[in-house]
Amino acid sequence: MRIDSLLSLLDEHSISYQFKGDSNGELTCAASLALAEPNALSFLNASQYLPALEQTHAGLVILKPEHQALCPVACVAVDAPYYVYSLCAQALYPDLPSAYTIAASASLAEDVILPNGLCIEANAVIKSGVVLGQGCWIQAGAILEEGVQVGQGCKIGAGVVIHRDCLIGDFTRIESGTVIGGEGFGWAPHQGRWSRIPQVGRVRIGRHVSIGNNCCIDRGALEDTVIEDHCIIDNLVHIAHNVQIGEGSAIAGQVGFAGTTKLGKHNIVAGQAGFAGHLSTVDSCHFAAKTGVTHDIKQAGAFAGFPAQEAVKWQKQTVRLRQLDKMAAQMKAMQKQIDALQHLVESTPIIPNQ
Amino acid sequence: MRIDSLLSLLDEHSISYQFKGDSNGELTCAASLALAEPNALSFLNASQYLPALEQTHAGLVILKPEHQALCPVACVAVDAPYYVYSLCAQALYPDLPSAYTIAASASLAEDVILPNGLCIEANAVIKSGVVLGQGCWIQAGAILEEGVQVGQGCKIGAGVVIHRDCLIGDFTRIESGTVIGGEGFGWAPHQGRWSRIPQVGRVRIGRHVSIGNNCCIDRGALEDTVIEDHCIIDNLVHIAHNVQIGEGSAIAGQVGFAGTTKLGKHNIVAGQAGFAGHLSTVDSCHFAAKTGVTHDIKQAGAFAGFPAQEAVKWQKQTVRLRQLDKMAAQMKAMQKQIDALQHLVESTPIIPNQ
Amino acid sequence: MRIDSLLSLLDEHSISYQFKGDSNGELTCAASLALAEPNALSFLNASQYLPALEQTHAGLVILKPEHQALCPVACVAVDAPYYVYSLCAQALYPDLPSAYTIAASASLAEDVILPNGLCIEANAVIKSGVVLGQGCWIQAGAILEEGVQVGQGCKIGAGVVIHRDCLIGDFTRIESGTVIGGEGFGWAPHQGRWSRIPQVGRVRIGRHVSIGNNCCIDRGALEDTVIEDHCIIDNLVHIAHNVQIGEGSAIAGQVGFAGTTKLGKHNIVAGQAGFAGHLSTVDSCHFAAKTGVTHDIKQAGAFAGFPAQEAVKWQKQTVRLRQLDKMAAQMKAMQKQIDALQHLVESTPIIPNQ
Repeated sequence: MRIDSLLSLLDEHSISYQFKGDSNGELTCAASLALAEPNALSFLNASQYLPALEQTHAGLVILKPEHQALCPVACVAVDAPYYVYSLCAQALYPDLPSAYTIAASASLAEDVILPNGLCIEANAVIKSGVVLGQGCWIQAGAILEEGVQVGQGCKIGAGVVIHRDCLIGDFTRIESGTVIGGEGFGWAPHQGRWSRIPQVGRVRIGRHVSIGNNCCIDRGALEDTVIEDHCIIDNLVHIAHNVQIGEGSAIAGQVGFAGTTKLGKHNIVAGQAGFAGHLSTVDSCHFAAKTGVTHDIKQAGAFAGFPAQEAVKWQKQTVRLRQLDKMAAQMKAMQKQIDALQHLVESTPIIPNQ
Repeated sequence: MRIDSLLSLLDEHSISYQFKGDSNGELTCAASLALAEPNALSFLNASQYLPALEQTHAGLVILKPEHQALCPVACVAVDAPYYVYSLCAQALYPDLPSAYTIAASASLAEDVILPNGLCIEANAVIKSGVVLGQGCWIQAGAILEEGVQVGQGCKIGAGVVIHRDCLIGDFTRIESGTVIGGEGFGWAPHQGRWSRIPQVGRVRIGRHVSIGNNCCIDRGALEDTVIEDHCIIDNLVHIAHNVQIGEGSAIAGQVGFAGTTKLGKHNIVAGQAGFAGHLSTVDSCHFAAKTGVTHDIKQAGAFAGFPAQEAVKWQKQTVRLRQLDKMAAQMKAMQKQIDALQHLVESTPIIPNQ
Repeated sequence: MRIDSLLSLLDEHSISYQFKGDSNGELTCAASLALAEPNALSFLNASQYLPALEQTHAGLVILKPEHQALCPVACVAVDAPYYVYSLCAQALYPDLPSAYTIAASASLAEDVILPNGLCIEANAVIKSGVVLGQGCWIQAGAILEEGVQVGQGCKIGAGVVIHRDCLIGDFTRIESGTVIGGEGFGWAPHQGRWSRIPQVGRVRIGRHVSIGNNCCIDRGALEDTVIEDHCIIDNLVHIAHNVQIGEGSAIAGQVGFAGTTKLGKHNIVAGQAGFAGHLSTVDSCHFAAKTGVTHDIKQAGAFAGFPAQEAVKWQKQTVRLRQLDKMAAQMKAMQKQIDALQHLVESTPIIPNQ
């Protein structure tokens, strides 16, 4: 890809930039500043890499205006280099199937709606009533049960299972091994046994959502489990029945949500955090790794610990915790001092009131 | 389904009930009180939904006797509405394959024992020596290795893998992507490397067990890993080699058990809890979310925290923890007070003993 | 397998041993001391099983020299019985496919390099440019994308997905349902949305590595995610982009690593521990279950807690934590004592300085 094509791409996105260098250069890959050869696109996002910038052999570096002078090679200065890099890298590495064909070994029900421009790979199973949007890429071994609807431009990864009637919005990506619309964990206890509550809701996933590998997003008990537009979800995440994940939220690896919890919009949840059921959070909350949320979060902010509290308080608390030993020693010393004082006072003859 | 058929079902289960309304009504789905139309079954389980009850348009509501008078539509009053709802919903939504057929693309070894009334979906792989019970539903892409035995009426989900010789009891359900009988994590350390201990035990799963999506239940090292009857297990649960899960226990999402741990009967384990290896718990324990159990639990009760302790103590401790800052301040004030007192006492002339 | 064949095996590994008994005995399985019949190999590794040793009917017991005299049956005394057992058990239970054949239902690209002595099971999908080493066992439904290279003697489990261009070293085993080389979780935030960073690195896995079931090891963003030789990894482990796991490390179930973290060699990580991103640990660290590592670990040792600290300090802290209630009560008593003292002192007439 020529540099001037990348610059046109920035124009298309109405991104203002300053370019320095020869726009005829050809880029064929992306690489870190340190390893980039003249055919590589690179970027500078953090000042710790300034020394690498000064030594780089990259073909083009995306950076902030203030670092432009230090760059020994062609560069494009923008306000948000990492974002601009993401656009250019997407152009360099289009994530598309090698061909828009339907594998002979795929099992397709007769009534599946198949627009042109589909890729369905080996051993995919598409059951009755499925509707696929244009440009969908159904990878090897993926299974779409009865009535599933997938929007246009979606990627359904290898071995993914989407159970009956679930809805996937346009341009959404579901990575390998993830199960969408599995049975929610709904049981009525009865005389020491468990009676199954049929889970008759669906999973509705919005547009431009990304879901990682080996996740589980359960269908709703009566109403739907909902993942709103523009959410990004990492690997091994568990989302129970009737959860709602608000628009634009980001959820890191191994996070779990119990049933009917409602995450606000633009929440960020770090790895291994967990949410009890029937909770809600407002928009723009941030949850640290391993946080255990056990109550509603009614004001935006950063939270940590278990039970979750304001992150700043949790940090103070962890510092205090490490001083506990010292506190105990100090208490012992104080007790000794008091006892000595008491002894002294009591052994002092009191002058009677006269 | 007609209401009188549902009432017959309650009779079959020897459930005593009071019915009010027209038993000729026809129900075709289940819905929440708020959203139910006249063709929907609904239920009232928690008093917070009483306002919804008074407004409902459901075709039939299952509720407790004390709420009967408030119900504007047909209702059936029982002692355990949620349990009775589960029975009725199972009747309304039978979880059965669309047809009892064997897909052409399924790979079946020649010696597999196949009773009548089986559903084997596309791309399922059934290896030599497998025995399937009547009415089994083997979903798309499931893999049953050599010698696996599956009881009657089981559902083996899409993409499930059951490794050689494992035993699955009658009416057990294993949801999509779960791996039963994978290699246990057994290694002998030797000069900085690890030598593999072949895992020659099996997994034995009882009757009426339910296992969620993308779980891992490892086979035993020498003896078997055992899941007893009537256990229910949620998604992404890890059960290591030689673990035993006692009858009727319920295990929520992302819980992990290290090797050879033995959970008592009717234990309830909330999400993201973890058990160290070689432990045991007695019957009827309850473990809160994120609990880390590191020692035997010898008396039934509720436990929380890491290391696990009685839940009540853990709750007190978390309250105290949040007071640590205050405690530190108080100690500082006390020290000041003592020092002032000491100064006062020491500056007071002592009257000599006379 | 005859006992004298097992003894030859020890000779081949240059293991010194003392044998007592009849070397013509035939062993057909392994079992615990308590359950072993005369056809079974067994071992004694912990002194708690000494009573079982004295009662055993095993055909051969592997044990330490000091326990030889107590053994009522044939035994072989060695310094490291568990390691020697692992070698013998591997010989008794060779983990090999039933036949080195390629299933008709496997989908193989035309240019796949297939040496002799391969087993490719039903429905495996091997895409263009894949190179397989001699003796590889590709289990049912495994998917190897374009350009994947697998060394000799590897086992790729049922339903495993290995994405494009990833490299698997010789004698490495990847268990069922694991996803290697999935997209890393790389996103540039932009105006409340997320722009995808194409993940153009690979996963490089060394020799003699073992990876459990339903794990996720993401490909690198620019450079590679690396698992070095002789690592062992349990189930449901999440390894994010650009992580490096040092040689010989052992990682238990449900552990998670955020991006670009570098684990030293011979680290041992217990279950449900988590590592923040961009960290490093030195060699020979041990992390307890549920540890949350949030900073570089610069000195070898044992660590626990969240945030991680030296395990000994964490243990003390947990003891102190449980004394918090007592400490608070003690503080209250001290305050009372001080106040009483103060009252006493203040009510005592001061003799004016004379």
